[in-house]
Amino acid sequence: MQKTFTIGLLGCGNIGEAVALELLANKNPSLKLKKAFVKDLNKKRNIANSFLTNNADEILNDPEINLIIEVLGGEEPALGFVIKALQNKKHLVTANKELIAKHGPQIFETAFQNSVQVRLDATVGGGIPIINTILDSLKANEITEVVGILNGTTNYILTQMKRGHSFELALKEAQEKGYAEPDPTNDLEGIDAKYKISILASLAFGNYISPSQVFCQGIKDISVLDFNLAKELGFSIKLLGVAKKLNKDEIKVKVYPCLIPAKKPLAKIDDVLNAILVRGDLIQELLLVGSGAGAKPTSSAILGDVLSIQKLADSTQSYLPYKINSLIKPNQGVEHNYRFYVRLIVDDQVGVIRDLGNVLAKNNISLESISQKAYNDENIEHNNQTEEATLTFLTHEVSENDFELALREVKILKPIREIACILRVFE
Amino acid sequence: MQKTFTIGLLGCGNIGEAVALELLANKNPSLKLKKAFVKDLNKKRNIANSFLTNNADEILNDPEINLIIEVLGGEEPALGFVIKALQNKKHLVTANKELIAKHGPQIFETAFQNSVQVRLDATVGGGIPIINTILDSLKANEITEVVGILNGTTNYILTQMKRGHSFELALKEAQEKGYAEPDPTNDLEGIDAKYKISILASLAFGNYISPSQVFCQGIKDISVLDFNLAKELGFSIKLLGVAKKLNKDEIKVKVYPCLIPAKKPLAKIDDVLNAILVRGDLIQELLLVGSGAGAKPTSSAILGDVLSIQKLADSTQSYLPYKINSLIKPNQGVEHNYRFYVRLIVDDQVGVIRDLGNVLAKNNISLESISQKAYNDENIEHNNQTEEATLTFLTHEVSENDFELALREVKILKPIREIACILRVFE
Repeated sequence: MQKTFTIGLLGCGNIGEAVALELLANKNPSLKLKKAFVKDLNKKRNIANSFLTNNADEILNDPEINLIIEVLGGEEPALGFVIKALQNKKHLVTANKELIAKHGPQIFETAFQNSVQVRLDATVGGGIPIINTILDSLKANEITEVVGILNGTTNYILTQMKRGHSFELALKEAQEKGYAEPDPTNDLEGIDAKYKISILASLAFGNYISPSQVFCQGIKDISVLDFNLAKELGFSIKLLGVAKKLNKDEIKVKVYPCLIPAKKPLAKIDDVLNAILVRGDLIQELLLVGSGAGAKPTSSAILGDVLSIQKLADSTQSYLPYKINSLIKPNQGVEHNYRFYVRLIVDDQVGVIRDLGNVLAKNNISLESISQKAYNDENIEHNNQTEEATLTFLTHEVSENDFELALREVKILKPIREIACILRVFE
Repeated sequence: MQKTFTIGLLGCGNIGEAVALELLANKNPSLKLKKAFVKDLNKKRNIANSFLTNNADEILNDPEINLIIEVLGGEEPALGFVIKALQNKKHLVTANKELIAKHGPQIFETAFQNSVQVRLDATVGGGIPIINTILDSLKANEITEVVGILNGTTNYILTQMKRGHSFELALKEAQEKGYAEPDPTNDLEGIDAKYKISILASLAFGNYISPSQVFCQGIKDISVLDFNLAKELGFSIKLLGVAKKLNKDEIKVKVYPCLIPAKKPLAKIDDVLNAILVRGDLIQELLLVGSGAGAKPTSSAILGDVLSIQKLADSTQSYLPYKINSLIKPNQGVEHNYRFYVRLIVDDQVGVIRDLGNVLAKNNISLESISQKAYNDENIEHNNQTEEATLTFLTHEVSENDFELALREVKILKPIREIACILRVFE
């Protein structure tokens, strides 16, 4: 006999409504939706008003409700609600990546103290079961690396740019299709991906990594020109979240747009798809690809988590998925080496490459390829009437520190107008 | 506190040894290997003799052992051992696809009656957690389709053939690399894939499908010529296991080599990799790619399953993963439509295409493309000295029945020497 779960839903936007409709369809009679918290009772919804309340306490204090699904997003009021629910011994399923990324330790600890469970598969990768795979199926592995295309919005924009659309047009298309918010900052600047990779890194390596510790670079400097140049060099451009264990005490956790060799599987994941690659000592390599967002795929993850909690319901086990006060700080100590791609806007005059070459050589930066073209990126306007040229180069693998020192000197070279774009190569 | 598991291992070949070594490394002190059953005590192994026995009853009747890992492969003695272990209330983790495909109902029912658990993630896709994903993460979905490259050996052979190696050479290479057995029949004829797709179909659709009910075609008719022709038409050739729910009562479960449009993700999965695509009402599409075999990836799945059982240990829940006496019979009732690719060896004479065209038209088979070339497949020897030609055609989507009737007539046309290869197109 399966234990019956009486469910309270916090939030009823697109995802919440999809979850509610699945529960109300009564496919599984042991799962009962009792009440959904909404901010605005008057908003038109496909759910009967009798299920709605704008008073969260009706859910949080209801002793009959033994499981909360939180899809409010953001920090507050979600955090306060969730902590109260856990203290009232309700299990938690959440899709809220910002909440888990920033407040995971408090949430997991509260759950542990109250012997209830927290499941969070929907926080990363929509319906892709990456978190459950890390927590359950790969549990016998020492995971050494998690790399992913974690943000569907930017992947769609980058894909459209690969097809020749300008950044502005691609963003507009993403907004028209509902893939991008009216204010797309969180996606474009890599903040959404940062939350996700910090969650994945924390679970994969067993130590809490705060999103504030994650290096983060967005996609705004990339132009169609970079895609053309990348293609010539045999690369695709993707925004990646990268979490890598370098040794026992050192990890790197970063979000950055990068060149990927076009033949690699991740280079071929286009449009709004997400993909996550995991490396471990036993599994070797595992790649998961699917819809990274959308109400239905996300509700698949949420309801899968509800059923997992139900399966464990008779168990008194609750556990912390990672160490909360980790001494391991990401992106420190160890030197990171990369190949770098750089696009410069320069004066079209004699001696630019020579001057650049001198500065790079002096800083131990050796070049794999360099090319100068007279054509401009149409998307970048310059008022200056002097002829300008685009100069791009790809370095051999060099230390990030050496590279940064070199770039400081490049920046002040007279013929250099602008360092327009810097991309790391992901090998 | 985690419950301690005392483990008995049945079988100690490559996979068993990898599992034993992981357990003996004592990374998780709550998992203890007590004894491993082997047929031959004298075979050289990396495990101390004190852990070995050639008397299975020492394990099956040991009340201290509460979990069995079965990696013997094949039906007997595995089935007898497993049933006895379950009756003695030991949980079971198995990697034995033939055992589960053929005897799943008896095994799951015995486990259910004895309130112990069975986990089987290692039976399909090596380390790829496809079974746990279907059983757990996707549980809220109605799964409509599972399609996979399920056999690494044939995928390696087909990949080498795509690169221009003959079937014989590719098989030899696979054997040299340890990917293929000395007797490769089970792989080449699709039997291994048949076991796997019958397990996946049973779990995905909730009804036991016996492997004897699965349509199965191997890869032996394919030649390098077919790869060249497929490439011209924009396809790749893969051996797929396909399980599809056509409606409430009708499913198809098949293994066949087929043409896949070269741009599809599955078309790009090469070498020994496995890949499984799942479609469901919520998840839409999910693709998992990884090492489909090998001792370490398989031990990842086995040990992940052991830890999952441990997590559920306090729970008294045991369940049947599918209906055992299903009335649904696969591959019946409904008509299946495909595009077909056919390669014929014909006499190089006037009128062949006209005669063929007549027969096909009469049987409602319309053609998408047809080509006749004078060159022969070097891999097929013919003693006949008459000039021969290769004629290939690709049909539009047609009913399987119409196609079979047409082919019967094609076969007896005078200029047709041989129907050398028939492949379905997987859309």
